[in-house]
Amino acid sequence: MKLKLLFSCLITAGIAVPSFAQEPVDADMVQKIREEGLNHSKVMETAFYLTDVSGPRLANSPGLKRAQNWAVNQLKAWGMANAKLEAWGKFGKGWEVQKNYAAITVPYYHAIIAIPKAWTPGTNGLIKGEVMLIKADSAAELEQYKGKLAGRIVIFDTKAPTERTWKVDAARYTDEELAEMANAKATPAGPRRNAADPNAAQMAAFRKLRAFRTALSQFLVDEKAGLVLSQARGTDGTVFTTNGASYADTAKAVAPELETSSEDYQRILRLIKGGQPVQLEAEIKTQFITDDLQGYDVVAEIPGTDKKLKDQVVMIGGHLDSWHGATGATDNAAGSAVMLEAMRILKAINFKPKRTIRIALWSSEEQGLFGSRGYVANHFGDPKTMELKPEQAKLSAYYNLDNGTGKIRGVYLQGDSAAAPIFKAWLEPFKDLGAATLTIRNTGGTDHLSFDAVGIPGFQFIQDAIDYGTRTHHSNQDTYDRLVEDDLKQAATIVASFVYHTSQRAEMIPRKELPKPQPAR
Amino acid sequence: MKLKLLFSCLITAGIAVPSFAQEPVDADMVQKIREEGLNHSKVMETAFYLTDVSGPRLANSPGLKRAQNWAVNQLKAWGMANAKLEAWGKFGKGWEVQKNYAAITVPYYHAIIAIPKAWTPGTNGLIKGEVMLIKADSAAELEQYKGKLAGRIVIFDTKAPTERTWKVDAARYTDEELAEMANAKATPAGPRRNAADPNAAQMAAFRKLRAFRTALSQFLVDEKAGLVLSQARGTDGTVFTTNGASYADTAKAVAPELETSSEDYQRILRLIKGGQPVQLEAEIKTQFITDDLQGYDVVAEIPGTDKKLKDQVVMIGGHLDSWHGATGATDNAAGSAVMLEAMRILKAINFKPKRTIRIALWSSEEQGLFGSRGYVANHFGDPKTMELKPEQAKLSAYYNLDNGTGKIRGVYLQGDSAAAPIFKAWLEPFKDLGAATLTIRNTGGTDHLSFDAVGIPGFQFIQDAIDYGTRTHHSNQDTYDRLVEDDLKQAATIVASFVYHTSQRAEMIPRKELPKPQPAR
Repeated sequence: MKLKLLFSCLITAGIAVPSFAQEPVDADMVQKIREEGLNHSKVMETAFYLTDVSGPRLANSPGLKRAQNWAVNQLKAWGMANAKLEAWGKFGKGWEVQKNYAAITVPYYHAIIAIPKAWTPGTNGLIKGEVMLIKADSAAELEQYKGKLAGRIVIFDTKAPTERTWKVDAARYTDEELAEMANAKATPAGPRRNAADPNAAQMAAFRKLRAFRTALSQFLVDEKAGLVLSQARGTDGTVFTTNGASYADTAKAVAPELETSSEDYQRILRLIKGGQPVQLEAEIKTQFITDDLQGYDVVAEIPGTDKKLKDQVVMIGGHLDSWHGATGATDNAAGSAVMLEAMRILKAINFKPKRTIRIALWSSEEQGLFGSRGYVANHFGDPKTMELKPEQAKLSAYYNLDNGTGKIRGVYLQGDSAAAPIFKAWLEPFKDLGAATLTIRNTGGTDHLSFDAVGIPGFQFIQDAIDYGTRTHHSNQDTYDRLVEDDLKQAATIVASFVYHTSQRAEMIPRKELPKPQPAR
Repeated sequence: MKLKLLFSCLITAGIAVPSFAQEPVDADMVQKIREEGLNHSKVMETAFYLTDVSGPRLANSPGLKRAQNWAVNQLKAWGMANAKLEAWGKFGKGWEVQKNYAAITVPYYHAIIAIPKAWTPGTNGLIKGEVMLIKADSAAELEQYKGKLAGRIVIFDTKAPTERTWKVDAARYTDEELAEMANAKATPAGPRRNAADPNAAQMAAFRKLRAFRTALSQFLVDEKAGLVLSQARGTDGTVFTTNGASYADTAKAVAPELETSSEDYQRILRLIKGGQPVQLEAEIKTQFITDDLQGYDVVAEIPGTDKKLKDQVVMIGGHLDSWHGATGATDNAAGSAVMLEAMRILKAINFKPKRTIRIALWSSEEQGLFGSRGYVANHFGDPKTMELKPEQAKLSAYYNLDNGTGKIRGVYLQGDSAAAPIFKAWLEPFKDLGAATLTIRNTGGTDHLSFDAVGIPGFQFIQDAIDYGTRTHHSNQDTYDRLVEDDLKQAATIVASFVYHTSQRAEMIPRKELPKPQPAR
């Protein structure tokens, strides 16, 4: 799941929820799907190959390619049609870590927990030296460091993170929270003022800071700084990772940068500020992969068999790419494994759908939903102009999973109130598994938005958060260990059932009004 | 705080709590102490020197020596008398880590979070190779590996730890929990059967396992295994550390052993068991310090000034040694800093006590309360024989702090019911700071036990746990960041007030019946 943007712009259609007509549910087929999904699951085996075996899956990295190739081959092995990698457009460079070692050596030895920022260069061998504290809030203040940084390890004065929330790391939705979601009203269309939105003064400060950061980044490169330490979000050994440079083939050079656990960062900082020199040794090696700048999605199908309906499609997906500090288990091997498993379940019960069922595992989601946007642009239309392609009229719905390992608790209707009675009926057989909530609300940050933007019903399921926000989302702790087996089985079963019903339904999923042309975010 | 022993043997005197007589409290002096302790505190500065500046403080390590020397010099600088290191007896070897690097290199690169077990040797340079899974539950099963382990990196099949408690990491005592402690009855004397105590079958299994572990350890040395991976307790990047060999100068050799984060350990294990070879590279360098096997405590005094009472003593203390994975902030720089601060407060307000006030910062507590036991044996008596020395009759009380960074909520009376009305009066001025609970209960695991064992009133304060059990106790996360400044200030203020009143009281603190001679634990 992509980071929430600074200005989230929630647009919902203000359509009243209609009275419920009885939507048919195929109880026999639901039972078959449940039996296969809950009692003969392969979802953990799939997750193992996507995480442990493939490794970190940063966009265009060797780890992502391993996972993509495994998925294509596995989809073929399960008997899917048209399993392949499909180029969605130009992305940029791949990147991976090949050596990562850093330790305090003075005043005593202590190996630190730190992770190179994505798309930053290495140290070109072992680097050693005293850590230098740079005190500057403006380009002018940087001038004092001119000629002094070559080969140096540098740190900046940064506040200690807030320690201890006194709250649980891992939790599920309570009945009260689900009721609140179910009772939510559709948000009026147009940009929503959020209490957390910055005011003009805050925006000016933010712009000034960003300008300084850009100047600083250039200064550090020009001065040939040896290694930059920056403080990672997270505590207790959990390190949240980010990128330190652009993935673009035309990206500006940056200095090597190590995202350091807050505990280690603050220790170094306290020592220096307390008059105690700190020496560090580090060896960072990273590799850029530039032989193919193209981005790819994994796609595969169970072809439709109904003469009239087989050109129509139901799609499911999730992004397969991850950040680089761990193996992206909850973000988003979980969703990918569930969607693969949903396909496997439907094939295993030998289902021959009326409409074609298609899975897509996106790439470069973490950089801006690029894999799904590119796919949507290639197949369905352009949200900027709202010029639509013929395929747009034939995609019934797109279902996405990308909110971690938590089980499905319901569906974000994304303002599509006409879908409510349909999904209500389809969720009915899964009340015992905790999935019963429909909310008219939108949710953001992931690939269903790419479909929603061109008028295709696109849905993300409501999922229990577990410890997604506190421990795993983009962190060094997003590993296989965090996957909750029962939750993934539940999710795959429900998705398979939704796909089944969508593929067999007399009509396609009803649509919202077509969005107006909009500039890209 | 030392690890809880397998068989905790709680012995309490079954004395009924007498009706409270009014114990005098010096309100003016309490106010002076509060002013100095709460508004002019140096406790965080002290903690900084004990943690960040000194480093890990494993018994007899260079880090502990730095902290001890700093404490002696600081106590002198504050004007304390007789500040010195005092040898308590023979301990064993010091040890420290000088290089710690390990990473998975196949199927992809991933630096792991791992810490050498205390008192284990290094790898003698960079070691590389495929990780070998050893499957053996008995010495006989080990035979198949004979001749195959030289220079190899080995791992064992171990269950994944329980993930996610769904509980908060950090918490304070609730009013209900404190009330429950206050209302507790004295436990009858004699060994207490605990629900968690193992039965005979469990004990036999435990003994068998221990015998196998001993045989395995010897086998790994004999076969010249290159590096042993073992799974650490802890999750989310938190790694709890232990020792892998004895500190004794006569200790048997062991193989190099790396306590590996459960996430990294389980990833390696899953890959190997899933038929995916794993290669690792590692470089571990450790140093043994053998030039002085003696153990030392830090001691210092504010001499008594009353002709009749100055030979009597009130003592405070906590252990200064720690484990090696972090800087032992909550275990127990916190308690040490608080006790140092209590001394500083009393000196800062220019208090001239009737009785002598003495601080002791123990060493080798983590290996068995050795520093305090040695000191008690040298000064007060032998708990095995109950032969007592004259000083035993002159020590009014010993107060200890060693349950983390949490503020003081009251006192464990350790069965000494006659002390209840006294402490109740002394806590009265600190109700606003949350300290009001007396429990007749014993608490174990730390240095007041050494005093209690020879009939000297020895007390540990009740402290809020915060995240002691979940995150910091013996872990790689026990750093300065975890210290709660307000809590340490509160604790130092209350301790200073207790010491003040103990030193001025007409009588010494009433004692329990003398314990019977007992074999050493």
